[in-house]
Amino acid sequence: MVDLPSQFVFNTFAFLIWGALVMWMCAGFTMLESGAVRTKNASMICLKNIGIYSIAGLAYFFIGYNIMYVDVGNLFGAFEFLYGPSGDEKALVDENFDAAASVVETGFAKMSQWFFQMVFVATAASIVSGAIAERIKMEAFFVFTLVLTAFIYPIVGAWTWGGGWLAKEGFQDFAGSTIVHGTGGWAALAGVLVIGPRLGKFKKDGAVRPTPPSNVLVVTLGVFILWFGWFGFNGGSQLALGTPRDAVVMTIVLVNTNLAAAAGVIAALAVSRQVLGRIDLFAGLNGAIAGLVAITAGPTMVDHWWAVVIGAVGGVVCTVGIKALEMRRIDDVVGAIPAHLLSGIWGTLAVTIAAGGRFHIQLLGIVSVGAFVFIASYIVWKAIDATLGLRVSEEVERMGQDAGELGIEAYPEFVLMPEPYDD
Amino acid sequence: MVDLPSQFVFNTFAFLIWGALVMWMCAGFTMLESGAVRTKNASMICLKNIGIYSIAGLAYFFIGYNIMYVDVGNLFGAFEFLYGPSGDEKALVDENFDAAASVVETGFAKMSQWFFQMVFVATAASIVSGAIAERIKMEAFFVFTLVLTAFIYPIVGAWTWGGGWLAKEGFQDFAGSTIVHGTGGWAALAGVLVIGPRLGKFKKDGAVRPTPPSNVLVVTLGVFILWFGWFGFNGGSQLALGTPRDAVVMTIVLVNTNLAAAAGVIAALAVSRQVLGRIDLFAGLNGAIAGLVAITAGPTMVDHWWAVVIGAVGGVVCTVGIKALEMRRIDDVVGAIPAHLLSGIWGTLAVTIAAGGRFHIQLLGIVSVGAFVFIASYIVWKAIDATLGLRVSEEVERMGQDAGELGIEAYPEFVLMPEPYDD
Amino acid sequence: MVDLPSQFVFNTFAFLIWGALVMWMCAGFTMLESGAVRTKNASMICLKNIGIYSIAGLAYFFIGYNIMYVDVGNLFGAFEFLYGPSGDEKALVDENFDAAASVVETGFAKMSQWFFQMVFVATAASIVSGAIAERIKMEAFFVFTLVLTAFIYPIVGAWTWGGGWLAKEGFQDFAGSTIVHGTGGWAALAGVLVIGPRLGKFKKDGAVRPTPPSNVLVVTLGVFILWFGWFGFNGGSQLALGTPRDAVVMTIVLVNTNLAAAAGVIAALAVSRQVLGRIDLFAGLNGAIAGLVAITAGPTMVDHWWAVVIGAVGGVVCTVGIKALEMRRIDDVVGAIPAHLLSGIWGTLAVTIAAGGRFHIQLLGIVSVGAFVFIASYIVWKAIDATLGLRVSEEVERMGQDAGELGIEAYPEFVLMPEPYDD
Repeated sequence: MVDLPSQFVFNTFAFLIWGALVMWMCAGFTMLESGAVRTKNASMICLKNIGIYSIAGLAYFFIGYNIMYVDVGNLFGAFEFLYGPSGDEKALVDENFDAAASVVETGFAKMSQWFFQMVFVATAASIVSGAIAERIKMEAFFVFTLVLTAFIYPIVGAWTWGGGWLAKEGFQDFAGSTIVHGTGGWAALAGVLVIGPRLGKFKKDGAVRPTPPSNVLVVTLGVFILWFGWFGFNGGSQLALGTPRDAVVMTIVLVNTNLAAAAGVIAALAVSRQVLGRIDLFAGLNGAIAGLVAITAGPTMVDHWWAVVIGAVGGVVCTVGIKALEMRRIDDVVGAIPAHLLSGIWGTLAVTIAAGGRFHIQLLGIVSVGAFVFIASYIVWKAIDATLGLRVSEEVERMGQDAGELGIEAYPEFVLMPEPYDD
Repeated sequence: MVDLPSQFVFNTFAFLIWGALVMWMCAGFTMLESGAVRTKNASMICLKNIGIYSIAGLAYFFIGYNIMYVDVGNLFGAFEFLYGPSGDEKALVDENFDAAASVVETGFAKMSQWFFQMVFVATAASIVSGAIAERIKMEAFFVFTLVLTAFIYPIVGAWTWGGGWLAKEGFQDFAGSTIVHGTGGWAALAGVLVIGPRLGKFKKDGAVRPTPPSNVLVVTLGVFILWFGWFGFNGGSQLALGTPRDAVVMTIVLVNTNLAAAAGVIAALAVSRQVLGRIDLFAGLNGAIAGLVAITAGPTMVDHWWAVVIGAVGGVVCTVGIKALEMRRIDDVVGAIPAHLLSGIWGTLAVTIAAGGRFHIQLLGIVSVGAFVFIASYIVWKAIDATLGLRVSEEVERMGQDAGELGIEAYPEFVLMPEPYDD
Repeated sequence: MVDLPSQFVFNTFAFLIWGALVMWMCAGFTMLESGAVRTKNASMICLKNIGIYSIAGLAYFFIGYNIMYVDVGNLFGAFEFLYGPSGDEKALVDENFDAAASVVETGFAKMSQWFFQMVFVATAASIVSGAIAERIKMEAFFVFTLVLTAFIYPIVGAWTWGGGWLAKEGFQDFAGSTIVHGTGGWAALAGVLVIGPRLGKFKKDGAVRPTPPSNVLVVTLGVFILWFGWFGFNGGSQLALGTPRDAVVMTIVLVNTNLAAAAGVIAALAVSRQVLGRIDLFAGLNGAIAGLVAITAGPTMVDHWWAVVIGAVGGVVCTVGIKALEMRRIDDVVGAIPAHLLSGIWGTLAVTIAAGGRFHIQLLGIVSVGAFVFIASYIVWKAIDATLGLRVSEEVERMGQDAGELGIEAYPEFVLMPEPYDD
């Protein structure tokens, strides 16, 4: 057996290094989204995303983490401020080595787990910004981000990873297909429904106006960043590295994560010709994310070939979902709802198909998280709309938020094409 | 001595974290190549590269790994599907702790080594896409990628790292100057020769049409990603971290890797004025890669100042190679053949100069790998050409593959310059 | 207690993996700067930054490291070439396992510490290139980089981390708010004063010509890279991971680092409306860096809520500093001086406010490092100016260094706006 002090170091370091890699996913979302929107809104996306990560990190420190993890009953935990290292840890830092034994028994440095969980909440919030881009006011978005990361996500987290009622029911969601990606997806869906589609996205004659990514290289970079970061997201969710068993499980997790993503790409590209009328790069890129989201609920539990299947179906679900949302005239700028919400539902259910478990509990988790997040988010979006206002003026939307709201264009020296408005 | 369970964790974790970093190199190749091609073909490069990584990951899982590592005789290994964790590992995952002892004895989680090797095969395939860019059909490229990653590369790997005939001869190639970079380079060269140069690259009057990178920032980012990822590529190739000796060797590897890259940049910039007529940024960037490729064969074995020399010569070889290929009217879009193949040959030979060893065995390895990969690739390229067709139509090539084949432009809102065609 | 061989592996691996992450910060500086300058100078920034990292790595190997760490008295260390692994380490690499015990006693592989320190010197040099961009000759810049990384930075390092006179006084600077960021900032300030502002930046009527970033996405990417890399920069500066105490301290460091950066963003955005007249994205991005720089001096020592305060004040200092420099007609292209120098001074002093310690010693360190670096740099800049010449011709400056000096445009196919010159 690995001795306890070494276990402590392994566990702590795993939280730190994988957590750092998950932080990097914020850059991935930023690139994906800022390359996917039209050039006239790309700076605003950059601002929103650095804002998300900053707000999430502070909100989760001051409020969210405690609600999610500290003294959780069934529904939520404590409202306690100034979370920090334990007294024993502080004593050890001050070179009081008598404290070492009791520190080591806790298994990992207390705040290393906080660090890892903090980067997760940022991920959930990042999902929202892409879906609702190109029309939401900056302040309105930041207020929602604050509520999501301080309250909504932590409450879902308390039910599950915090040991609340859903955990007691036996709901399984290893790294958050539902808890993280579902939460982000439902919050995004509520927002998109409240704010409505972009001007001119759906024409009066029923046609859908294509809004292709304005910078494909940047979108692709974003997807690679997310894929890379997902090794931390799923691998770190083993929450330990101190034993050979942890190392074996973490290995299985990384292998399944990669297989699912690869299968998601291939499957999405393959069906895109049928569904979207061409081998579609953007569908393929979203297929990677969908495959990753799908495997996230149970990468420890399934055989490798099941990971291929789960990822591939995720890719198909996402591609069909992109089309389905368009047909229902729901305007999700980057395909976040298909990639994160729909594929996350599939992944959460797939756990039981692939590895056993109780299907109805998984369904219960999906529905209860979905209902709570969707309703809470809907209320918050509406409340913001009634106070600050949610949507930029038509003039700003036509001009773009970069010039109209922020005053900083993304590519000020480049000659860009005038956009036709025939809605 | 480090106890066996801790060794197991160290070794496994090293495969995972360094492997994740090597995966990130795929983003590096994507950026390097998509920034280096003309804007009209940049989306296609993005698609090809996410496709490469996905195809390689699945092909190597279902076929390639087994050929390379499982029951290898002299030439290749088993055709076995559904590679996965050992029975003992599965038992341990299921909390049967009696299995721990026999798991620990294997030294590392079985699939962690698979993960590390899988990202290597993707690297080999990535080298090809840049060289042959801007004229090869998407489907044709994907078919070749499949054959390369399922069969050609694994056979070379079986000869060497798998313990086959070249390993038995004593061929030394620590992290793959020849096995990975040579294989990619020879496959690229065969492809470039079969498909021929881009329209208008070599004019009738003998002049060479310059095709500078369309987005220098993205190319530079790609090179930094590759340099960063190479720490995983070479560092992880120690294949262990469980002992102080492993840690010392891994340290020497990283230091030599960095010194060689730095020397490659400086040397390439210094000679570029002579060879190419100016201090050439693109030569300097390729010099980094050439230095990295050159040191890859023996970073454990050479004194640090030898790493400087090996990297510097690599940078010179690459710069001269860029010019030499142009003079022979061989059209390698990103300089992949000079950077990976020529510098890889140099590095494979330099091992013996710098650290002793048998020169003729190194030469035997270079020639036999080269002959096999070049001939096999040539046949595959020809077969694809005769069936699917290898090259896009002249119309698509002039228009660009993004608009002509894929239907997704890389920068759809940007006003771009019309390209003159005077060939 | 963790056994010594395991400690050796932990410590060494921490240097390597965190060091690799710090190397990645060079890509962050490159993106930040090349996106911040006007398009006509972006290629030159790419060249300079890959050059910086290469020159720094070689200069620090051949000269700088020895001055900083080997046999340091009060002022500087040895002039010794060919630094490398110890004899015992070489013996161990050659499988002489008798040497293992004495290797293990040293605590970490000798060159792993070199690797970690080498990436730091590159950081200091990277700070300079952004401030002085768009007008300095390539060769002149490279000569300064060589002097800075071989001599100036190592001498400051010898005084402090090398155990010289400032260390003996009790100067505290955990990861280099003053030693790295102050040094870079003072060297930049000297250069900016010697070379003067860009043509047309400050108009005759007193107006300041805005020069917004030419590619906001790339700037944002750069900031995310720096934030990510800073986990290595500060986390690795614990210089050990071999005990539970190290793991706890490293955790506190990462948490504080992230909190300070997040607070820097929010604070900078919040005051930017007052100071700069709008919610300013560029100020917010610089706020992240300023928060990171500010916490760098003492992330081990302060409570988490202090990290929030320190980062927030850093963000404010930086934003006000941007305005103040403009008002004094000092032209710092990317805001490097406010973000690194001013915020670094704040952070170095804040250590004592937040965690106790001697304020006057911190001040002594700031002043003595500042005086030495500023004066030495000023002399070197002047000497270069008198020989090679520091500034490009007016014609090259108007045309841009990419076309005028380098011959490689960053975006050759894109149609760019002509720049008005009304100075």
